[in-house]
Amino acid sequence: MSGNTFGKLFSVTTFGESHGPAIGCVIDGCPPGLALTEADIQPELDRRKPGTSRHVTQRQESDTVEILSGVYQGVTTGTPIALLIRNEDQRSKDYGNIAESFRPGHADYTYWHKYGVRDPRGGGRSSARLTAPVVGAAAIAKKWLQQQYGTVFKGCMSQLGDIAVPFQDWSHVPNNPFFAASGDADLIARMEAAMDALRKDGDSIGARIEVVAQNIPVGLGQPIYDKLDADIAYAMMGINAVKGVEIGAGFKSVEQKGSEHGDQLTPQGFIGNNAGGVLGGISTGQDITVSIAIKPTSSIRTPRQSIDKDGNPVMVETFGRHDPCVGIRATPIAEAMLALVLMDHALMHRAQCGDVKVHTPDIAL
Amino acid sequence: MSGNTFGKLFSVTTFGESHGPAIGCVIDGCPPGLALTEADIQPELDRRKPGTSRHVTQRQESDTVEILSGVYQGVTTGTPIALLIRNEDQRSKDYGNIAESFRPGHADYTYWHKYGVRDPRGGGRSSARLTAPVVGAAAIAKKWLQQQYGTVFKGCMSQLGDIAVPFQDWSHVPNNPFFAASGDADLIARMEAAMDALRKDGDSIGARIEVVAQNIPVGLGQPIYDKLDADIAYAMMGINAVKGVEIGAGFKSVEQKGSEHGDQLTPQGFIGNNAGGVLGGISTGQDITVSIAIKPTSSIRTPRQSIDKDGNPVMVETFGRHDPCVGIRATPIAEAMLALVLMDHALMHRAQCGDVKVHTPDIAL
Amino acid sequence: MSGNTFGKLFSVTTFGESHGPAIGCVIDGCPPGLALTEADIQPELDRRKPGTSRHVTQRQESDTVEILSGVYQGVTTGTPIALLIRNEDQRSKDYGNIAESFRPGHADYTYWHKYGVRDPRGGGRSSARLTAPVVGAAAIAKKWLQQQYGTVFKGCMSQLGDIAVPFQDWSHVPNNPFFAASGDADLIARMEAAMDALRKDGDSIGARIEVVAQNIPVGLGQPIYDKLDADIAYAMMGINAVKGVEIGAGFKSVEQKGSEHGDQLTPQGFIGNNAGGVLGGISTGQDITVSIAIKPTSSIRTPRQSIDKDGNPVMVETFGRHDPCVGIRATPIAEAMLALVLMDHALMHRAQCGDVKVHTPDIAL
Amino acid sequence: MSGNTFGKLFSVTTFGESHGPAIGCVIDGCPPGLALTEADIQPELDRRKPGTSRHVTQRQESDTVEILSGVYQGVTTGTPIALLIRNEDQRSKDYGNIAESFRPGHADYTYWHKYGVRDPRGGGRSSARLTAPVVGAAAIAKKWLQQQYGTVFKGCMSQLGDIAVPFQDWSHVPNNPFFAASGDADLIARMEAAMDALRKDGDSIGARIEVVAQNIPVGLGQPIYDKLDADIAYAMMGINAVKGVEIGAGFKSVEQKGSEHGDQLTPQGFIGNNAGGVLGGISTGQDITVSIAIKPTSSIRTPRQSIDKDGNPVMVETFGRHDPCVGIRATPIAEAMLALVLMDHALMHRAQCGDVKVHTPDIAL
Repeated sequence: MSGNTFGKLFSVTTFGESHGPAIGCVIDGCPPGLALTEADIQPELDRRKPGTSRHVTQRQESDTVEILSGVYQGVTTGTPIALLIRNEDQRSKDYGNIAESFRPGHADYTYWHKYGVRDPRGGGRSSARLTAPVVGAAAIAKKWLQQQYGTVFKGCMSQLGDIAVPFQDWSHVPNNPFFAASGDADLIARMEAAMDALRKDGDSIGARIEVVAQNIPVGLGQPIYDKLDADIAYAMMGINAVKGVEIGAGFKSVEQKGSEHGDQLTPQGFIGNNAGGVLGGISTGQDITVSIAIKPTSSIRTPRQSIDKDGNPVMVETFGRHDPCVGIRATPIAEAMLALVLMDHALMHRAQCGDVKVHTPDIAL
Repeated sequence: MSGNTFGKLFSVTTFGESHGPAIGCVIDGCPPGLALTEADIQPELDRRKPGTSRHVTQRQESDTVEILSGVYQGVTTGTPIALLIRNEDQRSKDYGNIAESFRPGHADYTYWHKYGVRDPRGGGRSSARLTAPVVGAAAIAKKWLQQQYGTVFKGCMSQLGDIAVPFQDWSHVPNNPFFAASGDADLIARMEAAMDALRKDGDSIGARIEVVAQNIPVGLGQPIYDKLDADIAYAMMGINAVKGVEIGAGFKSVEQKGSEHGDQLTPQGFIGNNAGGVLGGISTGQDITVSIAIKPTSSIRTPRQSIDKDGNPVMVETFGRHDPCVGIRATPIAEAMLALVLMDHALMHRAQCGDVKVHTPDIAL
Repeated sequence: MSGNTFGKLFSVTTFGESHGPAIGCVIDGCPPGLALTEADIQPELDRRKPGTSRHVTQRQESDTVEILSGVYQGVTTGTPIALLIRNEDQRSKDYGNIAESFRPGHADYTYWHKYGVRDPRGGGRSSARLTAPVVGAAAIAKKWLQQQYGTVFKGCMSQLGDIAVPFQDWSHVPNNPFFAASGDADLIARMEAAMDALRKDGDSIGARIEVVAQNIPVGLGQPIYDKLDADIAYAMMGINAVKGVEIGAGFKSVEQKGSEHGDQLTPQGFIGNNAGGVLGGISTGQDITVSIAIKPTSSIRTPRQSIDKDGNPVMVETFGRHDPCVGIRATPIAEAMLALVLMDHALMHRAQCGDVKVHTPDIAL
Repeated sequence: MSGNTFGKLFSVTTFGESHGPAIGCVIDGCPPGLALTEADIQPELDRRKPGTSRHVTQRQESDTVEILSGVYQGVTTGTPIALLIRNEDQRSKDYGNIAESFRPGHADYTYWHKYGVRDPRGGGRSSARLTAPVVGAAAIAKKWLQQQYGTVFKGCMSQLGDIAVPFQDWSHVPNNPFFAASGDADLIARMEAAMDALRKDGDSIGARIEVVAQNIPVGLGQPIYDKLDADIAYAMMGINAVKGVEIGAGFKSVEQKGSEHGDQLTPQGFIGNNAGGVLGGISTGQDITVSIAIKPTSSIRTPRQSIDKDGNPVMVETFGRHDPCVGIRATPIAEAMLALVLMDHALMHRAQCGDVKVHTPDIAL
C-alpha cells in the first residue's frame, strides 16, 4: 500500500537507503520448484552495479547478494525469498553539505515536505541504488519466464543526449560501456568524448532506452486498468529519472492514420508491430517494445540556485560520486522492471484461466 | 486484482460492456460528508458523451447517471457509491460482421486468445464506452479535491494528426469541438476540414492531449513504486488507444543537460517546471503536467487484411458509428484519470502523515 | 481497501443500503467459460430471503437478481459480473424513530461516530440485507468449484438458544424452518414454540451454525497470514451478528492432549478430523468444518436504555419487522462466505502452482 | 497476495524459516517522526522468546533484532523498516527423521502436497518461530498507538488444559511462567505440576488466551468485510495452533436473549460489554476483548501412526526441543496481532475521515 511493494502475485517489497547498513527485498509469490542460487542473481546485479567504467559513478560496491530464505537445497519452496545486499562504500560526508538545503531536480524538497524528516545520506531512499534489489528479484522472474515460455529480455541505449544510436544488433550491447546495440567504433568514440566533456564540465545529460521482451504467450494482461501496457508504463515511470514512456509506435502514432497504424493480420502473422505487442491491454505474442526517456542526472557540480529549509536562498553544488548519465545503467533496470511486470501477469493469467490455457501464438509472428 | 478496480483507497470498480444492458461502477472509499447529487456528476459525463458534434461517433446515449447507494439526504455516508448508466442505443448488428474475425488494431484477437470467449458487440468490455463510469467517479474526486485543496483540472488537445494546436488560453477549450485551447478560427477550420476528409475516406487519425492539475498540496505520492508520476503513467496508458505518456519535459529531457533540466528553487518559487510537478515520485506543489499520445481509431471503413478464428485470411472493414479521432473525447477522460490518481494519493497521504500535515507549498510557485 | 470488497482474485464488491433503491455487487475475477444465468443464482437468494416462515422477518422482498454484465450468450466472459437487486419493500417509517438515538447492540453508535453521518433507514449499510449480494456471488463460486472439484457446501443450525439440535442427516435441512439437520418432530415443535414465545415477548435469541465444505483439493491456503482457516475466520466474523468462530475441534482443543488432537494418518486416510480440514493454514482434503456463534437480534420491542445524539438518556424500542433469531437465515449466508473463501484460494493456488498441480488427496479420507 | 504480508496500510511482510540463516520482516507504512531504536522492539521479542522457563522449548535464541532501514538519527522516516533476526541455534538433526514422513497435526502433509517441495528443518516456514518478526513489528505499532491514543494491550492465559485460571489482576502476569493473571500460588503450582507431568509423558496440552486492547478511539473498522472484529479473527486464527476465536461474549451469546446481550447506553457509558468493544464492525471505544483457543503442540514424543511420502505406514515420534504447551508463549503473540490490526485500522480511518475526526468516546465507558 505504501508504495514499496511491486507486483500483486509476484510481489517484491524492497527496503533500505543508499547509505544505510543494507538494502534488499522480499519476494513473495515465486512458484515452488525453481532451481535457484545466488549465481542466478549475481550476474544481473553486476550488469547494473557502479564503477564498471569511467562513465558511471565510481562508488565501489560489490553488490554481493545473499539469499536469506525461500530456497532449500537449491530449489525455491514457494515461501518468501529474502535478498540482502550490504552497503559497503558509504561516504556520507560527500553528502553532508546538502542535508540543510534542497538540490534542484532532486527529491530533497518533496521528501522533506511529505515526511518532515529525511535521510539525506546519498539521497537515502530516493537513490537509484535502490534499483539493485529490484534487479535481483527480476533475475528470478527472468529465469522462471525463460523456463516456462522461453521469454528473453533485451535492452539498449538508443540515444545519448543529442547523439542518436541507430540499432545494429543486440550482440554489440555488452561490448561498449553504453549498452549501445552498435558496433560503430566512431559512434562509440563520440559518445565517450561527449561523456568526458560532461564530466569535465561537471554537468550531466539525458538518454533514451529501448527494452524488448520476446517469446511471451498471447493473453497476458487485464482489460481495463491493469492493462499490460499500463503496468509497463507504471513500472518504467517508477524508475528513477524516467520522464516518458512509449509502447510500440508511441508518440509517432499521433501522426499516423488508422489505415497505417493498425497492424494487419495474415495466416503468416501480424504485418508490423505498431502495437508494441499489446492490444486492448493484452499481449499479442509479438515482441513487447518499450522506449523510455531518462532525464539528466540531477547531481551535478555546476552551482545552482536553491533554498535551505528556512527558505533562505543558497547556492548548491553536488560533489561526491555520480553518474553523469543515469541512463547508462538504466538499461538492465528497465529490463528488470519489464520482467517483473510480465511475471506478475503470467501468474495472474494462470489464476484466471489456468496454465493449460497459456499458449504461444497460433499464427506465425 | 483482476484489473477492473482503479485506486487503492478511492477505489473505482467498473462493470459493463458497450452493448450490454448497463455500465457503471462502485466507488469505495469516498470520504463521508461530501454534498453529492447526480447534478455533480452529469456535467462531466456530458463532456465526454458521444454525438456532440459531427466529428465524433453518432451513437446516441444520454449517459444519464443514477446514484444507487452511498448518499443519504444529499451527503455521502462513507459507504460505497454505486453509479448506474443504462445503455440506450445498442445497434449490435453494426458489429455482427466482426464476431468471427479480428479487426486490426483491436482487442478482438487478444481477448479471444485470453478468454476463449468474448462479447463482440461494440467491442464489449474493450470499448471506450467504458470510460464513462470512470469519468463519473472522477467527478466526485474532483469535487472533493476542489473543496479540500482548491485543486482544478484542465485539459486540451495540442495536436491532431500533423496539425499542431498551439496553446493560447484554457478559456477556448469549450468553444470548439476539439477541446483546443485556441481561439484561432482558421486553425479550427483546418481541423474541421481534416476531420471531414478523414470521415469521407473512412480513415482515422491520432492526437496528442495535455492535462494539468493545479493547486495540489506538496507531498502527494510514494517514493518507490507508487510514485505519483508512475501512477499517472499507469492511469494514462490505461486509457483506450494511449501509446505514450510524458510528465513535465518528457522525451525532451533526453537532450537536456542537468544544468538545464533541474528546476532551480528560489524564495519566490521554482524556476521552470521540467519536473512536471513531481520530484522523486512526490508532488512539488507546482502544476502537474501530463502529455499523452492517442493512436488513430482502429475501427475504420477502409478494408484491411485479417484472419478469422480458424486462421483463414479475410478482409475486414468496420461499419457502424465510430470516432474518426478517439483523441477528441480523450480530454475529459484524461482529466478524470488524473483526478482519480490524485484523489487516491491524497487519501494515502492522510493515512501516512495525517491531514494536518497536508499543506500547500511554503514558497511561491 | 475500504472494506467493501471480499476476496483478492475472486473479488466481490458490494454496494447498497437496506432501504436505498437497490443493492448489488460486482464480481471481478470469475474465470471465463462458465455457463451462467440468473437461474443459477436465484435459488441461493431464495434460501436466505425474508418472509419464508413466521419465524423470520415479514419484509416482502422477491430478491430478484439481474445480471448486468460479464455474461454473453449464457457464458461468463472473464469480465466483471454485476448483480443488481432492487429493493421493493421499503417501509422507512418503521425506522424513523431511531434516527436520533442509538439502538443497544446496533451499529448506530459506531457509524455515527466514525462517519459523522449515517443512513438510518433499516440500519442502512449495516443491515443483514447486505448479505444478499454475497449469497448471489457465492452461487457463482459454488457452481465453479462444483464443476472443477466436485466441491459441495452444507450447513445447518446446531443450537437455538439453549436448545441443542443434534445432527441426524443433511437431508432434513430443507424440511423445517430452522435449517435443522434433524427429523425429530418434537424437537422442531419445541423450537417453534420457543420462537413463538420470543416473538410474543418482543425479545430475540442467539444460535449456533455449522457449515461444511466437502470434496476440495489438498493444498489450498497460504502458510502464514492468508491461511485458509484465517480467511474463513475473517469471512465468518464478518457476517452480521457473529461473535465466535471455530475450525474443527475449536475450543474443545483447549482440553485436548497432543496425543489426542493430532489426526493420525494411515494409508486409508486420516483418523479423525480435529483439524477441521486445515493444517498449517492449508487444506488437507478432508471436510472443512466450521462452527459459528450468532448473537441474538439487537432489534427488539423490549424497551431499553440508550442515549440520543446529544447524549441525553432515552428509552428505545425497535418496532418494524425483524428476525427474532438472525441465526435462522445465517446458514445459507455462512455457506456462501465459505464458498467465497475457497474460490479465492483455488484461484490463488492456480497462480502459484498452476492448475495441473491442484489434485485430490492421494490417500483415502 | 501470497499470504506473507499482514496489513494493508501498516504492512508487515515476513520472511524466513525456522532453521534458515535468518528471519525478519519489512514494515511498510509506519508514519514518519516516531522515535525508534532496537530498544523499543527487543523487550517484546524477549517476552516471547524460547528458553525462558523449563515449561517452554529449550532452544537457545537471543532473538537479537537489527533495524536495517527506515530509521535515521533515531526517528522513523516513513520509508520501509526492515528488521533482521539471525537464527543462532539450528540443530537440524533434531528434525532429520521427519523429512520423509508427515507428523500428525503438522503442516508437513499440506506443504508437501501444495508445493511439491518443503524445508523440513524445524517445520521450516510453518514454525511458530516465525511469530518473532511479527512481535517485533507490533512493538512499533504499540508504541505509535500508545503515543497517539494512549492505547495499551494486555493478555493472559485463562485456561491450561482443564485447569481454569480465574482472572485476578494484570499485575500478576509477569510474575509466573504462564502469563497467568493470578497470584494464587497453589494454582500456579498445579499448573507447573501438570506441565512437568506432560513433559515426562512426552505429551502436550492446549490453552485458552485472553487479550484486551484499552483506550482506543471510537470509529476504527470498516462496515462490511474488513470489520474490526473480522480482521481480529483473521489475525488470531492466523497464529499457529489457534482453532477458535471469540469477541466479547463469543459463544456465550448463543444462549443469550437480545434483552440481555445488547449493551445498553447511558450518559455514564455502556452497561456491560457483550460486544467486546465492536458494534457493526467498528470500535465503540470500550475495551476490545478477545479469547482464543490454542490446540496442543503437535510435536510430541509419543509414537503416532502416519505415512511416508510414498504412502507407506510409519510410526512417528518427534524428538528435539518443543513447547509442551504452545499456548504459553502465545500471549505476547496474540497481543502483537491485535496491535497490528488496530494500527492498520487507525491508519485506514485517517485516510477516510482524517485524523481530526479520530476521537475518544464522548460518553464515559
